[in-house]
Amino acid sequence: MSYELYYWAEIQGRGEFVRLAFEYSGTPYVDVARSPGGMKKMFSMMKRGGPFAPPFLKSGRLVIAQTPNILLYLGPRLGLAPESEARRLWLHPLQLTIADCLVEVHDCHHPIGAGLYYEDQKPESKRRAVNFRSERLPKFLRYFDQVLRHERRFSYVNLSLFQMMEGLDYAFPRTMARQRVPALRRNQERVRDRLGDYLASRRRIPFNRQGIFRHYPELDAR
Amino acid sequence: MSYELYYWAEIQGRGEFVRLAFEYSGTPYVDVARSPGGMKKMFSMMKRGGPFAPPFLKSGRLVIAQTPNILLYLGPRLGLAPESEARRLWLHPLQLTIADCLVEVHDCHHPIGAGLYYEDQKPESKRRAVNFRSERLPKFLRYFDQVLRHERRFSYVNLSLFQMMEGLDYAFPRTMARQRVPALRRNQERVRDRLGDYLASRRRIPFNRQGIFRHYPELDAR
Repeated sequence: MSYELYYWAEIQGRGEFVRLAFEYSGTPYVDVARSPGGMKKMFSMMKRGGPFAPPFLKSGRLVIAQTPNILLYLGPRLGLAPESEARRLWLHPLQLTIADCLVEVHDCHHPIGAGLYYEDQKPESKRRAVNFRSERLPKFLRYFDQVLRHERRFSYVNLSLFQMMEGLDYAFPRTMARQRVPALRRNQERVRDRLGDYLASRRRIPFNRQGIFRHYPELDAR
Repeated sequence: MSYELYYWAEIQGRGEFVRLAFEYSGTPYVDVARSPGGMKKMFSMMKRGGPFAPPFLKSGRLVIAQTPNILLYLGPRLGLAPESEARRLWLHPLQLTIADCLVEVHDCHHPIGAGLYYEDQKPESKRRAVNFRSERLPKFLRYFDQVLRHERRFSYVNLSLFQMMEGLDYAFPRTMARQRVPALRRNQERVRDRLGDYLASRRRIPFNRQGIFRHYPELDAR
């Protein structure tokens, strides 16, 4: 059985958290929207009772929506999470908290509406970014650094925290240079080493100004 | 074994989605922060490796964070979701999409920062609310109305959609009066009838201007 991932072809975005699980575990998958005719297929799956939004995964006859839910499903199957319910109930809310952080990162450049251009909400973005950098970002980072200090087993959450840090470094380089989060940094280096082939491949879409993590210098610290 | 819910004492908020599951199923639970000494207990649980934020549930030795994850755990135990994995993987992302909608509702009155007062972000709130009412709200409502038209089995998602509609009616009465979402309305009436005792009790905290759903007339349609 092959896995089919449905996600936007031009960005890392939320789909990247699923791609990383496949790539790290060496699991074959089809990145549907990046294949010929794939975008059309993705849109047709979203009609009539389909998912609200990408990413979603097709696994046999199942269609599984929402990134944290996809990772909940894939974790034990890809060797990236134990089967036990107690462990699942601990890892999954960590992924949900990462998802919460992603929304706040996205809203730094889209505080008024996701359907508007950044250029149409720049003053609001600046205010939001100041608040995010000073209040929310340190809180999330402190929390996850402390979590990693006590985690002994590698899981899909380690991959997601790698991706979160890579994105934050891209979007807010000056702010991130000042954060002291040694466990998050160790995890980031470790995962980056192991994902070397993927990260150097064309399968890894570069960060850009269409995804969640965007580098606008005016939104970073001075 | 008794369930302990940890959530802010003054608001419905995200905790209410868990309260509804307990109340609807007639399951005993302790609403810890609303009990003597409860707030202190809640804060001490959040230290040293605890959850990032309320709500969280204590069930025996398990501490379970994040509303959708709590409902994932409680669903089959409270008779509000079948055990089957396929069904779980369908219901859970619906709850995650409701959670996404709640963030957008909250950000209508806090587009710049959750730690700032509404009064300090009123112009931005007005812009955000216009966008939410015209673009996002109809999209969410259409999606869930269509989902309910095809759902044959009652689950915790029905309870959450009831709560979402109650909150939206409170926050945006003029906007909501114009929405044609018959399946969501039927579900809302049905759940309201069955929850009559709870909704009339002092356990149901009234909507107010501290929760997710807030009524500021200037953020509603004219």
